[in-house]
Amino acid sequence: MPRPRVVILGAGFGGLHAARALAREPVDVVVVDRRNHHLFQPLLYQVATAGLSGPDIAAPIRKVLRRQRNATVLLGDARAVDRAARKVLLADGEELAYDHLIVATGVTHDWFGHEEWAEHAPGLKTLEDAMRIRARVILAYESAEREEALERRRAWLTFVVVGAGPTGVELAGALAELARHTLARDFRRVDPRATKILLLEAAGEVLPAFPADLALKARRQLERLGVTVRTRARVTAIDAEGVAIDGERVAARTVIWSAGVRATSITASLGAPLDALGRVRVEPTLALPGEPRVYVIGDAALLESGGRAVPPLAPAAIQEGRHAARNVARALRGEAPLAFRYRDRGALATIGRAAAVADLGRFRCSGLMAWVLWLFVHIFFLIGFRNRLAVLFEWAWAWLTYQRVARVIPHAAERMKRR
Amino acid sequence: MPRPRVVILGAGFGGLHAARALAREPVDVVVVDRRNHHLFQPLLYQVATAGLSGPDIAAPIRKVLRRQRNATVLLGDARAVDRAARKVLLADGEELAYDHLIVATGVTHDWFGHEEWAEHAPGLKTLEDAMRIRARVILAYESAEREEALERRRAWLTFVVVGAGPTGVELAGALAELARHTLARDFRRVDPRATKILLLEAAGEVLPAFPADLALKARRQLERLGVTVRTRARVTAIDAEGVAIDGERVAARTVIWSAGVRATSITASLGAPLDALGRVRVEPTLALPGEPRVYVIGDAALLESGGRAVPPLAPAAIQEGRHAARNVARALRGEAPLAFRYRDRGALATIGRAAAVADLGRFRCSGLMAWVLWLFVHIFFLIGFRNRLAVLFEWAWAWLTYQRVARVIPHAAERMKRR
Repeated sequence: MPRPRVVILGAGFGGLHAARALAREPVDVVVVDRRNHHLFQPLLYQVATAGLSGPDIAAPIRKVLRRQRNATVLLGDARAVDRAARKVLLADGEELAYDHLIVATGVTHDWFGHEEWAEHAPGLKTLEDAMRIRARVILAYESAEREEALERRRAWLTFVVVGAGPTGVELAGALAELARHTLARDFRRVDPRATKILLLEAAGEVLPAFPADLALKARRQLERLGVTVRTRARVTAIDAEGVAIDGERVAARTVIWSAGVRATSITASLGAPLDALGRVRVEPTLALPGEPRVYVIGDAALLESGGRAVPPLAPAAIQEGRHAARNVARALRGEAPLAFRYRDRGALATIGRAAAVADLGRFRCSGLMAWVLWLFVHIFFLIGFRNRLAVLFEWAWAWLTYQRVARVIPHAAERMKRR
Repeated sequence: MPRPRVVILGAGFGGLHAARALAREPVDVVVVDRRNHHLFQPLLYQVATAGLSGPDIAAPIRKVLRRQRNATVLLGDARAVDRAARKVLLADGEELAYDHLIVATGVTHDWFGHEEWAEHAPGLKTLEDAMRIRARVILAYESAEREEALERRRAWLTFVVVGAGPTGVELAGALAELARHTLARDFRRVDPRATKILLLEAAGEVLPAFPADLALKARRQLERLGVTVRTRARVTAIDAEGVAIDGERVAARTVIWSAGVRATSITASLGAPLDALGRVRVEPTLALPGEPRVYVIGDAALLESGGRAVPPLAPAAIQEGRHAARNVARALRGEAPLAFRYRDRGALATIGRAAAVADLGRFRCSGLMAWVLWLFVHIFFLIGFRNRLAVLFEWAWAWLTYQRVARVIPHAAERMKRR
């Protein structure tokens, strides 16, 4: 008799930890992902700002699961789930039958209904996004160097980050360091230290999910780095020439979007209640309502635990992945599923060189101490020993020299022409 | 009075060393390149076979020349030279006047008049080429894993390298190690150790530019790694399904071209004698015949020194770059240009883990000793201290673990669909 097949869609934090948690269970695990690598997303902003190489924060999924004999990796693009037939439909027309399904497909960008902004304000979720942003940032300086008119040069040297959650804050801080230190003396006509970095947030303070005192400290640290922070700022237009903030135009040739996300389209095929962003309202067990064979975890899932919404963070996805795996194992033994309980480990955000804020519940800190904490936590959780060493090395080097190692972009001149 | 302007086209080994050699001369140096980085081409095969990240072997040109106050870097695509007007024409319509010009634009691929082969058999000259080949190689294994039919699976697991010069030999050796060690246990259906790697050479032995005894040793080392070497093999057709060797079909979904090169098209605008591959026959001074303001150096130049053709190697380009700079400086002082004399430092080729051949004139060696020599020479010449450390680290790691760090490719599933 063939063993039950557990299909896991997505090899992010949730999916990968679900797969691992099933290693000793009597099942065949199939992990499906559109990419061949797991991505350590919390460090993606470092790739976008030329601090790290892509491969430093990515691990081939096959390598991660190599020793897990009951796991198979399938490079494929899952498009829909047919619950009645218990099948996943792939983009190339193939079908994949499942006995149990764990949907861990995460979220993608959402421009609040303004799809036309996507081209001018790319978001940061994948390695490809990071490479695109890196190319835009580096080429903005190249274009400024070749620009004669002062006004236009200034527009090339203005960077706007929309959304001051952890990613926006980290991006703005890294852009400031790139301008003030790494590139400071590389040009002849332009002075990168004159770069304007504008961080926009619709809420009343940066890092809205953090306690107010830490958020304020983060803002102060950003301002010390030279970032201009504007809160209660609503973006009303974005095009190739800049943005409008509550109607006021700001000329900026480089805009990065870190404001909105939505679930990938596959959740629509699950036939389950979704919120406006396509996220699935799951039961306390993480299963779809009335469908104990299908679990949704990670950023694509919506649920409360201990009276609060489970946040869209890597630790939550990891916990949910393990929990869904455990419930699958229980179902195979004929046991009832258990309700998920989120254990809040806190949250961290870094603001450039040697500054960060850490919210660990009762314990809070900011500045150098929070940064060291952030460093250790992130390196510890990077999957793969080798990556840990390489990232530590890159950082030590960047920290000592203010250099950024990954300033190389492909097709530089052609890209510049196209803009 | 403005200082004379020396324009250097291309920031490869020749162009960059020419620029540096002009640091203390009373001139303005403008270095024009289509890319924002200098590339350490001798290690490009490592990027193509996932051993190194792109940024490890690339250095931003601006960073390399940052401290040279008389040098400016221009990211631009030089298309033609107008000798009468002393101008370089850029692709975006701009013009760049020069007093002295050093053309160091190198070579690109040439498929012996079969441009239709380009799509199926990419060459390896740029970082983009390397990323494309890396993606094809990794995805060939992914496709084999998903392929049901044995014959088709075998075609995915057959890699053909056309041309057994140093690049072809190094590529074939690295592909063999990737198959036999790195990927050996990563798949469930296919056994990467069964991969067939075919190295084709039209001449009578691999490494035709090397002494016969070393070439034979290189061949033995390749065969020990599991590479099938076929000499006196003429490729008569290449398409998406495979190659024809003297009419005989070999099914192979991955073909890499390392057989032919030609000068980039800019040499045609110089109004100077060219060979069939577009290379410029320069005077012994490296200047164009009858045009002492324009020098051509590196792979794009053809000349003899000591009765032998100067070989298309990095050390030759470096020597020529320095010599051209010296002749420009002499012209400014009213002195006659000197003839170039090539100092042959020998040649090296590596064949995978701990094997290589070295031809240093009187001293020749092979095996581990040549490999250690190769390692030191290459790390020593890598531009930038940081890159040296990172590459050493990657290598030490790869050597100890047989792992390859850069197996990550963007848009994996989409690319697989398109093939």
